[in-house]
Formats: sequence, structure tokens, C-alpha cells
Amino acid sequence: MKELVRELGDVVSTDAAVLEEHSRDTSRAEPGGLPAAVVRVHSATEVQTVLRWATTHRVPVSVRGAGTGVSGGALAYPGGLVVSLAAMNQVLEIDAPNRIAEVDPGIIVDQLDQAAAAHELMYAPDPVSYQTATIGGTVDTNAGGLRCLAHGVTRDVIAGLEVVLADGRLIRTGSRTRKNSTGYDLTGLFIGSEGTLGVVTRVIARLKPRPVGEAVTFSAQFPTMAAAGAAVATIMASATTPEMLELMDRNSIDIVQRHFPSAVAAEGEALLVGQTIGTDAQQQAEAVVSACRDAGALLAEAGGGEELLDTRRMVNPALNAAGLALSCDVAVPPSRLAEMFERIDDISVQTGYPVNTCAHAGDGNMHPSVLAANDSAEEVAAAEHVLTLITEAALDMGGVISGEHRIGSLKTGMLAQQFDPDTLDLQHQLKGFFDPVGILSPGRAI
Amino acid sequence: MKELVRELGDVVSTDAAVLEEHSRDTSRAEPGGLPAAVVRVHSATEVQTVLRWATTHRVPVSVRGAGTGVSGGALAYPGGLVVSLAAMNQVLEIDAPNRIAEVDPGIIVDQLDQAAAAHELMYAPDPVSYQTATIGGTVDTNAGGLRCLAHGVTRDVIAGLEVVLADGRLIRTGSRTRKNSTGYDLTGLFIGSEGTLGVVTRVIARLKPRPVGEAVTFSAQFPTMAAAGAAVATIMASATTPEMLELMDRNSIDIVQRHFPSAVAAEGEALLVGQTIGTDAQQQAEAVVSACRDAGALLAEAGGGEELLDTRRMVNPALNAAGLALSCDVAVPPSRLAEMFERIDDISVQTGYPVNTCAHAGDGNMHPSVLAANDSAEEVAAAEHVLTLITEAALDMGGVISGEHRIGSLKTGMLAQQFDPDTLDLQHQLKGFFDPVGILSPGRAI
Ligand SMILES: Cc1cc2nc3c(=O)[nH]c(=O)nc-3n(C[C@H](O)[C@H](O)[C@H](O)COP(=O)(O)OP(=O)(O)OC[C@H]3O[C@@H](n4cnc5c(N)ncnc54)[C@H](O)[C@@H]3O)c2cc1C
Ligand SMILES: Cc1cc2nc3c(=O)[nH]c(=O)nc-3n(C[C@H](O)[C@H](O)[C@H](O)COP(=O)(O)OP(=O)(O)OC[C@H]3O[C@@H](n4cnc5c(N)ncnc54)[C@H](O)[C@@H]3O)c2cc1C
Repeated sequence: MKELVRELGDVVSTDAAVLEEHSRDTSRAEPGGLPAAVVRVHSATEVQTVLRWATTHRVPVSVRGAGTGVSGGALAYPGGLVVSLAAMNQVLEIDAPNRIAEVDPGIIVDQLDQAAAAHELMYAPDPVSYQTATIGGTVDTNAGGLRCLAHGVTRDVIAGLEVVLADGRLIRTGSRTRKNSTGYDLTGLFIGSEGTLGVVTRVIARLKPRPVGEAVTFSAQFPTMAAAGAAVATIMASATTPEMLELMDRNSIDIVQRHFPSAVAAEGEALLVGQTIGTDAQQQAEAVVSACRDAGALLAEAGGGEELLDTRRMVNPALNAAGLALSCDVAVPPSRLAEMFERIDDISVQTGYPVNTCAHAGDGNMHPSVLAANDSAEEVAAAEHVLTLITEAALDMGGVISGEHRIGSLKTGMLAQQFDPDTLDLQHQLKGFFDPVGILSPGRAI
Repeated sequence: MKELVRELGDVVSTDAAVLEEHSRDTSRAEPGGLPAAVVRVHSATEVQTVLRWATTHRVPVSVRGAGTGVSGGALAYPGGLVVSLAAMNQVLEIDAPNRIAEVDPGIIVDQLDQAAAAHELMYAPDPVSYQTATIGGTVDTNAGGLRCLAHGVTRDVIAGLEVVLADGRLIRTGSRTRKNSTGYDLTGLFIGSEGTLGVVTRVIARLKPRPVGEAVTFSAQFPTMAAAGAAVATIMASATTPEMLELMDRNSIDIVQRHFPSAVAAEGEALLVGQTIGTDAQQQAEAVVSACRDAGALLAEAGGGEELLDTRRMVNPALNAAGLALSCDVAVPPSRLAEMFERIDDISVQTGYPVNTCAHAGDGNMHPSVLAANDSAEEVAAAEHVLTLITEAALDMGGVISGEHRIGSLKTGMLAQQFDPDTLDLQHQLKGFFDPVGILSPGRAI
């Protein structure tokens, strides 16, 4: 460690408060001890130095943006190093004519989007955490967001990366051209790899024109989640897809209203909210609303303000305020949503645990949460079991165990249900190929 | 070999005509000898058998769809095996509500698109070879096409794959959900890997709603290619992108007219043609046309039929008919198109070789061709040198050596100019990881 301090100086911190602050992310995962040091790097060269040192000394490294991840991906290793990219946070270039941004990994997503906005462009992926998460963290989790229904997830907008490998080699992937048919798609491989294959030190992102025209918010209340799910399937099979399409169940609405009395009230068992944008936004919103009525909505209307979407955005903070919420992040094909919601109801009844579900409904991605009564191991295990049953139901329907929050350190136990043995083996071997000593986020993601 | 015949029966052919027919693709690459056998597989299991046998006996294997590739990727190895996927050619499922198709690798692109059309959906990537190329071949080349400007290349629409690895293991990647945050992106890694990492035995593709509304074709003639390039840059930096935006230079127009007198005539040095589709297609096309006028078009008009696009589609056949055309496939950021076209002019003047250039202009992807006077080694080398100079010019502008046709066996020599040594090394090592014995398309792609 002295060597590392000698080489890097005071970017290496062993201050107790700093260690504590960098030891966990926003999940319920527990690090089990403090890291030995936090290295707040300022350049790719510093990252190379750290990783070379860690490989030589076989010290586990966790990689950290803002720590807003919810799967324990950025959790510190007791006695390990935390490499924080937060101080590498500049927009290096906005190439407006080619709609390309080149940025440091530690820049906050919203700051990149604002820089793009100055050129009437947008950086599309907008996880609900967009005001705090870093671009590097969203690259390594392949984050989605509300507007990814219309504009794609992080993977869909990344044109190239600079990455430092475990042994300290620096490589560059992708290009600034719109098309590129050279070499293997390393860009895609690093996206979503949760800090296990390399440390991203630069990001080339594609920007989109900022949608012009008014934004029309719509909402529909349904007697059951299944009815709302059926409506979503119909909307998603129609020719025009809204910009956003989000769903909350009764329990989610109640919990939001309990904690934020100003939130929008709603009747029924399910509230679908969304937005259309463009010159024909009103017309599109009315088409969605009419599909909702046909699917049995109690009340459906186009028009209504951003506060409808804010209500959706309050689910997370409300759940946090409510206590120990365990949640999962399954996704199913949209046509199976109604069935999936029925299964969740059944599981809730069978286990006696109330489940809150909110969903990026158009994408078939949902976050069912179970509130544990207390944090005893027994109670937590019982709540986890409810989530396991829900996850198995999603797998039965051709779904996946994670739609956007990834595996981190919390969900590795379920991977064998998602992948057949040869496919999972291959991924472990691939990790070994990139990081033979196993210093980078060992034991996570796969 | 007898073993293989015993196991697989008459799917293994050593008939001289069959060997000959499967020994080259549509490029000028020469196999240098006939393969030992062609295996026309009917199932993934047969592919497993072949690859296990080849790995055991260290026999090189080339993988073949329809052989329409233009970089020598599917070229046979003398004494090697050709695995042909052409007989695995069924649509297995069109899941219309979720806009997913599951198909065999040997199905022709157009057949998949037609199957989708029956549900008012479309399979978007449409290489000019769409009536002959297989989906597996387009996956392994990550093919683009005319409408990929608006709808993305093959990579953008593939949701999952089944792949047989060199050692015979079968793996499955991706999912049918719209979002998936589990494991490494193996799907992306296999796309564009040109038969070097595995054999694709099944494809899960995302379909899109078929665009509704009229299609409006537009065209603009320019006094120079540089002026046309500047117009394209402006159009691509504006808020609405046309469905297609293609460019031909004077030489390309002339050569088409020489071989197909029915083709559309045009004045000037450059002809830009394209299409807008949708309810506001006419208005969009007029916006494009007005941008062209502002950029100095001699004549620009919205309206005009499919024959304008057909003229563009005739460039390839016309060049083939004209004799030994050597072409490349560079791409640059759209804002550099004008500069790139000027450089091509300079190179043509300096070397004394006329160059024909047609371009998927909106994507910054162009196919400059040089006609060699004869097929003597000297003359071919001189023509190749012209292409090398053009490729170097593209690299200077932040471009890539291949925008869509890939590397195959023809362009490996230029990879060191595209990639820094560590990045290229990593790709060679990755190939070694997937195929340690080196039987799958050895020496190609990277
Ligand atoms: C309130 C809230 C709302 C959220 N909403 C959404 C949502 O709508 N959609 C969604 O998809 N997710 C959402 N998330 C989770 C989302 O994954 C994270 O917010 C974000 O992607 C992580 O960014 P970060 O900078 O905080 O990364 P961290 O949490 O620090 O790290 C996340 C992962 O990325 C790795 N990593 C970080 N930086 C790098 C780097 N430079 N190189 C290599 N690896 C790196 C880490 O090792 C870790 O595995 C939400 C989270 C919160 C707390
Ligand atoms: C007239 C013409 C027009 C063209 N237009 C375009 C265009 O507009 N845009 C564009 O991008 N390309 C274009 N191409 C080239 C394009 O790459 C091919 O047409 C197509 O992608 C190859 O399909 P194929 O089935 O013929 O594959 P092949 O030529 O048989 O093989 C191509 C590559 O894929 C590999 N491969 C094939 N099948 C499999 C499989 N199942 N598993 C693993 N690897 C496999 C081969 O080994 C080889 O490396 C054109 C070609 C021609 C001849």
C-alpha cells in the first residue's frame, strides 16, 4: 500500500470516514468490513497504476461511480481497494453535427444531458437516479429509465469506450462513426459488466435530437393490475409507442400517498401513467387512452401534468421511508404482463406478504417489493422467499431475473435458473480470461 | 472424414461441383484450393458433431450462409470443411404481440421480412442483397442496408442467439424480453464475428411496426460530391432523419446508365436520392429538398418513384458487369463527408485512377471502387493502392476501415491501422479463448 501511496499521493485515502462512505451502495447488501483504501482517481493512468498494483498484490478492487446501484455491485471488499471515478467528471466534447459526446466516466447523467440540451440534443437514458448516478455506473449496469421505452437503454446509445483491464492495459473500443464493422464488439461486452471486466475511463455516447412539440401526460385507472397489464400489451403491440408508460399498483399508490400527501390520488387497483411527445402528442395520447378504456379502465384521460410522473418517481423514496423494502427487478415479454400480475397476486395471498409493484410497464420490467416487518434474519429470509417465487414465475414466462438493476452481489444465486450450465460456465471462463487473478469485483455479476 | 460421413450421412458432400460451388463468396478473394467436404447441416446437433470432429482433427472450417459476403469471410480453406447453414431455413415463430421472430440461421432475409409483413411488422435490416443473403450471414457480418439509417443495423435488432462453439458446446444468449440485465452481452459479441467465434444455429430477432403512410422519394443533383456531402451533413444534423439517404457520384451514374440504359439520368457530379415515410412524408421530403437547395443543389425535388432507389441498387451489378472492380467500405462521421469526397478526388487525380463512389450517405458509409484495367498482379496492386490511400484518408478523419462489409480475409492487413496494439491483441486473445485450436475461420476478421 505504501508503494501505491508513494506513486499516487493523496488520491489514496485511508481516512475512516472516507472508507465508510465508500463501502456500500444503495442496496441492502452489507460489505462485512471496511476497505483498506479508497482511490479517487483523476486519470486513466492512475487507474492503470492501481489495477497493476492490485493484480500484483492480489487485492480485490471494487469500482465505484456514485454508489446509487441497487444490487451491491459497487460494495467494498473488506481489506480491498475502492476505485472511485467520481472525480473524473468532465464533458470532453459535444460534437453536435455528428451527435456524439465524449465524456469522463464520473460525470453525472443529468449533467451530460444538460450539456447535450445546449445543442438541442439529449442523452436519452434517464434512470430515476439521473441526478446522482454517473455515466460510468450506468454503462456498467446498462441502466434504463423512463424514456428508454422510446429511446433505448444505455447499450443502445454507447458508441465507444476506453477501458483499463485488470492487468493495467488500456484499450479503446468502438468509434465515432455511425457504422463500424471492424473487430469484435468489445463495447457491448463491457456494457453491463458491472465492474468485473475492466474500469471504464472514457465514454463516447450518441446523442439524439431533443424531442420537439408538447409533452402530453395521460393516465388510466384500472380495477385490477391484470387489466392494466392487458392494456399495456395492447398499447405495445400497436403502431405508436408512447415516450413513457409506467404502472403502479394500489399498494404503491398508498405508500406514496402516506409519505407524500401531495401526491396524486387514484382509485382502483392500478394506475397507468405515461407521456407522449411530438407534434401529434395529443392525438397519440388519446389513442392510448382509448385503448385503456377498451381494456376496462375505470377512468382514463389525456392531459394532466408532470405530477403524474412525479408520483411514479416517488415510489422509491416512499419505500425507503417505509422501512426495510426488499425488491426485485424481473422482466417478462409485454404480452405476459397480465398473467404475471395475477401470479404476483397469488403469491402474495399464499405467503401472506403484501407486495407493492411498480413497473416500467411498456418494457415488461417491474419492481415488486416486499416490506419485511423487521430486519431479523428470519423475517428477511421470508421476504426474500416471496421474491424468489415471483422471480421463478417470471422465468416460467420467458422472463429474466433482472430487467435493469443487474445481478451485483445480491442475485448471483439465481443465475443458474436463468442460464443453462454451458452458457453460465462460458461467462465464468470469460471473466477468467479478462481478469485471471480475479481482482476486479470478484464473485459478482455472473 | 469417414467417421464424419458415418455419423452424418449424405449431408457430407465431396461432390466436385458442390465443393466448387461452396468454395468462394462474392468477393474477389481466392480460396487457393477446394475444401475436402461441404456439410449441409440440418440441425444444431449436426453442427456440434462437425465442430467436435474438426477440433479433434484440427481441420479448418469455414461457415457459410448464402455466400453473398464481399470480404472473403465464407471462403473455403483448401482441404477444410465448409459448414453450410442454407438448409436450416425455417421461420420457427412470429410472436406478433411481442414483436419477436425466432428463425433458423439459413432463412433468407427477405423471407423473414415477408413473414413479419403478414403481421404488419418488418424485419428492418435490408442489405441490398436481402433477396439472397441469409439471416445468419447478416448476423455474422452485422449487415446494414438502405433503411438502416432510420432503423439500425443488424446488431440493433437481434435479441438473442443460439451458437455452437468450436468445441461443440451449445450456448444460448439474450432473451425475448425488451430489457435484460443478466450476464455478459454474448449476443453482441457474436454479431459481426464473421464465423470466427461460433456457428449461429438460431436467431431471435426484434421486429418493428411496418411504417404506415406514403413513401415519398426525393432526389437532388449537385455540382460536386463535396457539396452533396455538405448537404448530407446538414440533413443528418437536423431533427428529422429520412428513411434512406443514398449518394452516387458521376462515375457511378455513368456506369449504371451504360449497363442499364433504362436507369434514371442525372446531371451534375453527384446524385442524392432518398425516401421519407409516414403521415408527414411529403413535408419531411420537402424539408430535405430545401436543405439541398440551400447547400447548392442544381436541381432538387420531392416526389419521384422507386426507380430512383433502383438506380442506386444497380451500382453493384453494373460494376460487376464492368469488370474487375476493387472496392472498399470506409465510414466517416457525417460532418466529414465533404472533406472525404474532396480527398477521394485528390487521390484519383494523383494516382490517375478514376474512382466511382456510391454511399449510404446518411451513415457516412461509402463504397469507393476502382476499376482495374486487367487482372494482372501489377494492375490489381495499383488499384489496391488507390483504395489504401482512400482508407488512410478515412482513418485520418476519425473513420473506420469498414462500415458494413467487414474484414473477412481481404482486409486483415489494415487492422493495425484501425486499432492500437493492445486493443488488437486483446481481440486475438479473445479468439484464442473461444477457439483454442483455431479451427473456426482461422486468420479472418481480426
Ligand atoms: C433512486 C434510484 C432510482 C434508480 N432508478 C433506476 C432506473 O430507473 N433504471 C435503472 O436501470 N436503474 C436505476 N437505478 C439503479 C442504477 O443502476 C444506478 O442508479 C446507476 O446505474 C448506477 O450509477 P452509479 O454511478 O451510482 O454506479 P455505482 O452504484 O457506483 O456502480 C454500479 C455498478 O457499476 C460499476 N461501475 C461504476 N462505475 C464504473 C466504471 N467507471 N467502470 C467500470 N465499472 C463501473 C460498479 O462496480 C457497479 O457494479 C436506480 C437507483 C436508485 C438509487
Ligand atoms: C449485391 C450485394 C449487395 C450487398 N449489399 C449490402 C448492404 O447493403 N449492406 C451490407 O451490410 N452488406 C451488403 N452486402 C454484403 C453482406 O455482408 C452480405 O450480403 C450478407 O451479410 C452475407 O449473407 P450470406 O448469408 O450470404 O453470408 P456469407 O457470405 O455466406 O457469410 C458471411 C460471413 O458470415 C459468416 N456466417 C454465415 N453464416 C453464419 C452462421 N450461421 N454462423 C456464423 N457465421 C456465419 C461467414 O463465415 C462469413 O464470415 C451485399 C452483398 C452483395 C453481393
